[in-house]
Amino acid sequence: MRNRAVVLLSGGLDSTVCLAVAKSRGFAVHALSVDYGQRHRWELRAAQRVAGQLGACDHRIVTINLRAIGGSALTDEIPVPKDRTPEQMSHGVPITYVPARNTILLSLALGYAETIPAYDLFIGANILDYSGYPDCRPEFLQAFERLANLATRAGTEGQGCFRVHAPLLSMTKAEIIRVGATLGVDFSWTLSCYDPDEQGRACGRCDACLLRKKGFAEAGLPDPTGYQPQ
Amino acid sequence: MRNRAVVLLSGGLDSTVCLAVAKSRGFAVHALSVDYGQRHRWELRAAQRVAGQLGACDHRIVTINLRAIGGSALTDEIPVPKDRTPEQMSHGVPITYVPARNTILLSLALGYAETIPAYDLFIGANILDYSGYPDCRPEFLQAFERLANLATRAGTEGQGCFRVHAPLLSMTKAEIIRVGATLGVDFSWTLSCYDPDEQGRACGRCDACLLRKKGFAEAGLPDPTGYQPQ
Repeated sequence: MRNRAVVLLSGGLDSTVCLAVAKSRGFAVHALSVDYGQRHRWELRAAQRVAGQLGACDHRIVTINLRAIGGSALTDEIPVPKDRTPEQMSHGVPITYVPARNTILLSLALGYAETIPAYDLFIGANILDYSGYPDCRPEFLQAFERLANLATRAGTEGQGCFRVHAPLLSMTKAEIIRVGATLGVDFSWTLSCYDPDEQGRACGRCDACLLRKKGFAEAGLPDPTGYQPQ
Repeated sequence: MRNRAVVLLSGGLDSTVCLAVAKSRGFAVHALSVDYGQRHRWELRAAQRVAGQLGACDHRIVTINLRAIGGSALTDEIPVPKDRTPEQMSHGVPITYVPARNTILLSLALGYAETIPAYDLFIGANILDYSGYPDCRPEFLQAFERLANLATRAGTEGQGCFRVHAPLLSMTKAEIIRVGATLGVDFSWTLSCYDPDEQGRACGRCDACLLRKKGFAEAGLPDPTGYQPQ
């Protein structure tokens, strides 16, 4: 029997490639999406498409109303910034930062892993996103791995040892796109945009869209994203 | 201005005393309850009562469907065990264990704290509960504190340092009850039962009820809990 892994899947480009990497390493993939009241519910539809197309064994969606604790353009009534330069993006923590997001996502992945059971957690965190996201740093991921091994029945009873995998951590967006293409990802399944329109089309102007466009350009591959007409 | 603290409040006996302790230490208390699909939704009503009576500045309720990932008698369709002896209770991880619960709860407390901002998190974990709950151990709480300081904007930008307080950690249930009584807690506000009836009355027979009854007996105080007629 293949080892099972829980893969956090938003339906964006990075988490999709992360899932493809987990599969390529021989894991039976259990995808976990978290609907945390983000504006881009279209991402969840993308996640369902990706999980189906890439052959996940299971796909669970946990709903959580992070709006109750507020504090981000993605869950609160703060406008998503548009047309920012790379310099503006790299300055400080962006307002699209969701408080304690990766801590919350990994906690849920850990809870799901305990029930399966699985001891391998995959998250699509990468350094590019660390332009101000503290919870994408390697030292954060290591600290979570340590926590996971203290927090759980498996850790207590010595049945296993949790590992947090972040295979995209040190890749550029262009490298992530190339790896995904090699592993058979069709990027038209995915949605990165922070602010899609009512038909689910990407805005082309938020930080996520701008980074994605740049990634395809640098990878020398066509961008299959359906953008809104400008 | 008083320092703010986020206090995890289930509406049970322990978290209520924990809130009273946080207040007695001079914190402006922001209570956070998490509705994770537990059977005992009556606990949330108790939490609202407690937050009001003890003068919390704010009380937020985050809803999360942990049923989507399953794995516990409190969220799944597994019967709650009744009439167990202390020896049975102390053996292994109880099936009322919710996977990664305290990791998830503290993550949400951290997210809420970031938005307020607050740097002090209170959780009513205690050693008695560690009869098999790995995420009530001091080494788990220390690991979470370390994680919090790596995970957040405040940690990154050096604005502050998170602390996880577990003031009840090494108290017996009787000691917790005495401390609460001293701080003015009326325990009839609280609900500990894992399996209350349709009128919100405690069953008197689950592990939580049995530990609570024993605690009042040992504290030499009357138990004001409204139990179901047996």
